Amino acid sequence: MRFEVVAVDPASGLRAGLLHTPHGVVPTPSFMPVGTLGTVKSLTPADVRATGAQVVLANSYHLALQPGVETVQRLGGLHSFMRWDGPILTDSGGFQVFSLDHLRQVGEEGVTFASHLDGAPMFLSPECVVQSQECLGADLIMPLDECLGTAATYAETEAALERTQRWWRRGQAAHQRPDQALFALIQGGLFEDLRREAARAAASHPAPGFAIGGLSVGEPKDVTAALLQATLAELPADRPRYLMGVGHPSDLVTYARLGVDLFDCVLPTRLGRNGTVWCDLDGRRLHLSRRALLGRGGPIVPGCMCMACTNWSVGGLAALYQNRDPLAYRLASMHNLTILGRLAHDLRRTVLYTAEKNSMLRVGKARDW
Amino acid sequence: MRFEVVAVDPASGLRAGLLHTPHGVVPTPSFMPVGTLGTVKSLTPADVRATGAQVVLANSYHLALQPGVETVQRLGGLHSFMRWDGPILTDSGGFQVFSLDHLRQVGEEGVTFASHLDGAPMFLSPECVVQSQECLGADLIMPLDECLGTAATYAETEAALERTQRWWRRGQAAHQRPDQALFALIQGGLFEDLRREAARAAASHPAPGFAIGGLSVGEPKDVTAALLQATLAELPADRPRYLMGVGHPSDLVTYARLGVDLFDCVLPTRLGRNGTVWCDLDGRRLHLSRRALLGRGGPIVPGCMCMACTNWSVGGLAALYQNRDPLAYRLASMHNLTILGRLAHDLRRTVLYTAEKNSMLRVGKARDW
Repeated sequence: MRFEVVAVDPASGLRAGLLHTPHGVVPTPSFMPVGTLGTVKSLTPADVRATGAQVVLANSYHLALQPGVETVQRLGGLHSFMRWDGPILTDSGGFQVFSLDHLRQVGEEGVTFASHLDGAPMFLSPECVVQSQECLGADLIMPLDECLGTAATYAETEAALERTQRWWRRGQAAHQRPDQALFALIQGGLFEDLRREAARAAASHPAPGFAIGGLSVGEPKDVTAALLQATLAELPADRPRYLMGVGHPSDLVTYARLGVDLFDCVLPTRLGRNGTVWCDLDGRRLHLSRRALLGRGGPIVPGCMCMACTNWSVGGLAALYQNRDPLAYRLASMHNLTILGRLAHDLRRTVLYTAEKNSMLRVGKARDW
Repeated sequence: MRFEVVAVDPASGLRAGLLHTPHGVVPTPSFMPVGTLGTVKSLTPADVRATGAQVVLANSYHLALQPGVETVQRLGGLHSFMRWDGPILTDSGGFQVFSLDHLRQVGEEGVTFASHLDGAPMFLSPECVVQSQECLGADLIMPLDECLGTAATYAETEAALERTQRWWRRGQAAHQRPDQALFALIQGGLFEDLRREAARAAASHPAPGFAIGGLSVGEPKDVTAALLQATLAELPADRPRYLMGVGHPSDLVTYARLGVDLFDCVLPTRLGRNGTVWCDLDGRRLHLSRRALLGRGGPIVPGCMCMACTNWSVGGLAALYQNRDPLAYRLASMHNLTILGRLAHDLRRTVLYTAEKNSMLRVGKARDW
């Protein structure tokens, strides 16, 4: 994996980059749709591509339970299983384990917990999450981290931070496949100095990229922005920054302007499957379940190039959704993903255009768009 | 609407035809996917086309209840509402009314019954079903008929037959749009002489085509074939014959060989949504819910050109289905429809090829394929 920063906006931290992976180049900023079980629900890979997405995310914890890492391997590995020949990122399962508040026990060795499917006892260690992601075969992989809730104290957060750093070194020692980039994972809760410390510690390792977790979990948006700025200030500029779990249109714009390159979130597709579509670039919502929408002509967002907006009226989409036609989930998901894809594209265009005007663009780098 | 018989197989009743409609030409035999509420569930129009389908069917009764005929008109008519610019057939609602065994009262004027949605009292007359189909705007429309169950006596069947004929004349008198073809509808239950009589009566009217109802409703297959042969023997050869509600692969082949041109059925898509796919051209079934399928490589049917078979292994499809991903319903529906589309195509090719060899083909007619 190689990352190039092509241009930086002098007025903000916004940057246009190119992330080179064994499965293709990703222009950044980029939003990564989430395919928990190996598919972005209700979409084909071609549908996902049509939204402008270039990388997809899958959850190694879910895949390990269902259909199992071995089954994925037998079917040709994760790229083959997902029918996606572009870049893939897998997470470590840490977040899932810590969000299931069920019979969980954290020790220095790793985490013991009960499967969310059948309650079977399971154990995750920093080594085994790397090994299982190596078997799956994603391009970008994540280490095990200890996640805490928003109620964690300073002392708890500091202890978790240090453990996450020890786990990161163990994960790195276990990591064998040179074609996979194992990111460093930065926590630090809602404490600015711990965020800075975590970022500095991560930066001191030869990590190919940085994942920032535990933000945008319910705290006020100005707090998120301040913590994110503190984190980013400590990170080297030449490596990609991935803000985990952020996917609201206005958040994507705000945090990309602070210097984030990669985003992921279930929000656009989860909303879509529940019949909620974003009706502007700020993320205002329209609920397709409303009877009053049935007769409304015109697209959800005029000018939107998604499959829903270029083919169906709001009324037609509302009728599909109210008839419980699975096509509605697909179209609404594609629309919401396209809003994010377009925002990421526009942010990139803006910084490239500004840089070109100011002659700050490195020669020949703009050809990718 | 205009129908051409391009070639007839001398060894059977199989025929290749061209059905010219205001929205395009349909090569027959043809299977018509069912889009009850205006969409073939979980599929886009492009998906439907990719299965080889050329006409789709919608149910005027369901559309009248939800979203309502006026809403469909406000959104630009049925073709616009369905995003389908090819030919559409709507049924009259007769079958739905008679299959809801709920508070139904048949009189000479029409049928009074309770809505299946909210129990509201409704009334269908031979005139109003034509008018509502004229407002919707399909290319092929159906008259109101009185359907009876398989337990009906000879006397009941005869009375229903005569009433259907009187209703057909009233429907024809009410019919105003010259761009829509109002088919005659043939009933006659399981009595061969009544089938013949109904067919003769229908043939004596200037009907543009014939719909054959009330067959394949549970009776043995040789009974269906005998009744169908009796019906077809009385029908003029120059007009299309549509066998309602038939859609199993082996039935399509058998009845096309007797001289049927058009078929429709919910079976391929209903099976698909329940995770059942046809694994050969005879219609043997594979249930994607089986755990044992998870690791199986290779397509459902080798050589099948559907989106599922050209992109996913059986194991991948089983994983999708077992994860309840709506994509599984879409792919399985597309696969089953493609099996029928391919069978209809192959039947047509066979008769055209035989006719060409025997120089019975009218010059220039084979160009459509």
